[in-house]
Amino acid sequence: MVAELISVGTEILLGNITNTNARYLAEQCASLGLSCYYQVTVGDNPDRLEGALKQALKRSDVVILTGGLGPTNDDLTKEIAAKVLEKPLAEDLHTRECIETYFKNSMHRVVTENNWKQALVPQGAKVIDNHNGTAPGLIMETRDQKCVILLPGPPNELYPMFEQDIRPYLSSLTKEIIYSRTVKIGGLGESFVATEIKDLLDAQTNPTIAPYAKTGEVHLRVTARARTTEDAKKMIRPVLKELKHRFGINIFATHEEVSMEDKLVSMLQKRGWTITTAESCTGGLLSGRLINVAGASNVIDQCFVTYANAAKHALLGVKNHTLKKHGAVSPQTAREMAKGAAKAAGADVAISVTGIAGPGGGTKEKPVGLVYIGCSVKGYIEVMECHFSGNRSKVREATVARAIDFARRCVIRYSK
Amino acid sequence: MVAELISVGTEILLGNITNTNARYLAEQCASLGLSCYYQVTVGDNPDRLEGALKQALKRSDVVILTGGLGPTNDDLTKEIAAKVLEKPLAEDLHTRECIETYFKNSMHRVVTENNWKQALVPQGAKVIDNHNGTAPGLIMETRDQKCVILLPGPPNELYPMFEQDIRPYLSSLTKEIIYSRTVKIGGLGESFVATEIKDLLDAQTNPTIAPYAKTGEVHLRVTARARTTEDAKKMIRPVLKELKHRFGINIFATHEEVSMEDKLVSMLQKRGWTITTAESCTGGLLSGRLINVAGASNVIDQCFVTYANAAKHALLGVKNHTLKKHGAVSPQTAREMAKGAAKAAGADVAISVTGIAGPGGGTKEKPVGLVYIGCSVKGYIEVMECHFSGNRSKVREATVARAIDFARRCVIRYSK
Repeated sequence: MVAELISVGTEILLGNITNTNARYLAEQCASLGLSCYYQVTVGDNPDRLEGALKQALKRSDVVILTGGLGPTNDDLTKEIAAKVLEKPLAEDLHTRECIETYFKNSMHRVVTENNWKQALVPQGAKVIDNHNGTAPGLIMETRDQKCVILLPGPPNELYPMFEQDIRPYLSSLTKEIIYSRTVKIGGLGESFVATEIKDLLDAQTNPTIAPYAKTGEVHLRVTARARTTEDAKKMIRPVLKELKHRFGINIFATHEEVSMEDKLVSMLQKRGWTITTAESCTGGLLSGRLINVAGASNVIDQCFVTYANAAKHALLGVKNHTLKKHGAVSPQTAREMAKGAAKAAGADVAISVTGIAGPGGGTKEKPVGLVYIGCSVKGYIEVMECHFSGNRSKVREATVARAIDFARRCVIRYSK
Repeated sequence: MVAELISVGTEILLGNITNTNARYLAEQCASLGLSCYYQVTVGDNPDRLEGALKQALKRSDVVILTGGLGPTNDDLTKEIAAKVLEKPLAEDLHTRECIETYFKNSMHRVVTENNWKQALVPQGAKVIDNHNGTAPGLIMETRDQKCVILLPGPPNELYPMFEQDIRPYLSSLTKEIIYSRTVKIGGLGESFVATEIKDLLDAQTNPTIAPYAKTGEVHLRVTARARTTEDAKKMIRPVLKELKHRFGINIFATHEEVSMEDKLVSMLQKRGWTITTAESCTGGLLSGRLINVAGASNVIDQCFVTYANAAKHALLGVKNHTLKKHGAVSPQTAREMAKGAAKAAGADVAISVTGIAGPGGGTKEKPVGLVYIGCSVKGYIEVMECHFSGNRSKVREATVARAIDFARRCVIRYSK
């Protein structure tokens, strides 16, 4: 079964926004076993939208349109869909009531005449209530078993509507399910990982293995198509086993929703340990990422941002002699920062970061991108030297990711 | 002149990645005065790619294809373009040498047979060197004055190539230039801003005003089309003046590349002031954002992440009595955090944040999303109460943005 996505919106054509809806819907369709051969974006133009919809209905089975369901004159998706499918528009009483209620509850907004057009519904369409906005979703089935789905553009309206109503509907159309697991690897480069599983990538049929790179991580998504979820899980199991065999502790998670920091915080909670951080160039991004984990309060009390050398000395006890002789960006300083932070915070684990994020500050001996990451676990201290490329923002982002992975490995190493 | 974007890549159709290239190119085309009516994504499929290119050549003047220029068997864009434009492929010696040099300099990679196909070039095409990869860009002009441009998919190869070679080429095609300025507003909601300039939005022709919302900011992009940059600047000037008149100090920048933190750090540098932060739920994201500004070292020495109550007391001197009576999330605690941080760091300005990011921790009196932001400027302390919606990540992101804007306003207020 083939799905096609049509994104309606001049703001996408102008490059004002990134089309994240297309990515979300494409991923959802793939997970439902729908093949997607085309994604098209058109503006708020009736003729071009009509042409795109007609073309989609010729070549695809399911056409999902997002955007253009608002109350203004530029919003045409529903009108065009009704025209192409030759259905008259009539006011749906239930939807009108939903719109009235939505405005009553939203405190400061008055229904405008424009909004009533959102209560118009093509004859025969299945109306999907919108709990986060005024435009209902619509499912229209055509005479030749095709399906046209109209969804609102704002992600906070689209995502819940898709999850609650559209996904179940599409599931009923396809005879297959797709089940995925994501093997997440830290601290290894994408080409290295791809080389290590070249034989698996070349031979793949079902399940498939799709690698993709994130900052400091490589994800391997293993996907199986089958008649039931149970069958799909059975097909995936040996692939996961083989990947675990090949990558060992480089793998920090095997579920899509588990992040590196989730894993680290969870490991600390299991051991009843606390953690602190001492950051220089990353300026708080590392502690910020750890504290994003719900439940971080069980393992974190305080963290340090010691941007100036004087602060490294005053707060962490880094020796002035060390700063003078080796400099702030040195393994010696990273070591003393980790040791001092663990002591000052009374924490079992401490991660320290000191480096040159750029654009300025680099020299021949210590170029931009040079970063030292220190990790103290129950008094055992290791320091890692890194060389990152890219702009200031990229260097800091890569540093934070590497630091979390480094801490994870150190905690494993010194847990025995 | 009409441009069309064709993104080639199955990974986009599968929803594995977000199509940020389309957004970048759309924005670039708009800024060059090219109208964009269609954006299409197809996979690594020869028939569908050929169909998409033929259709694009019928309805558009400039067709820009990204992706599919790699060395593998799936990479077909060049072959299909050559077929559609009826040009034979032949090896380009210069490109072959570029590829050899690229591999020689890249330390650990060996040229594979596959890579040589990247040296094949359609007859008559203009070759654009790729300084960040192996695939050259290609510009092909057709018999009927149309233009097909092939560009590499990886953003770090695409962006520099477009900036250096494609932009000048496209500029020469169009008889108009487009010039934009972005008015950036902090601390006001998008609908409020849109209402304040409804008359301007309704009446706009040239220049145009496009509003769009970011977290904690609203950007108004004012764009003029003219024969010369000078003329465009003249057209924009009165619009900028009117916006400045209407929004006053709510505006923190009038250039696209200036962020809120750039502005705040710049203001502090001008005054010779230093700043510190004391964060709880945002965990370091605020200091992390400030320290992203090159030159932050002139104004920041150290920052505090006081996640536990004990840390707020020990590091910032927040009274145990205050924490017991009012709680960590209270205006009283925010005030004492700001005061204590300024003193402990010896800084002129201090920003404090304490709130409930969720998902847990909320009560009827203090729900998830409740955040207090304190700001101390030369001893004068103000506290702001905020209510944010969304998940943990969104609450923290919104808090950081609001805190930076709040500090900016306080610095202005207490500078007199």
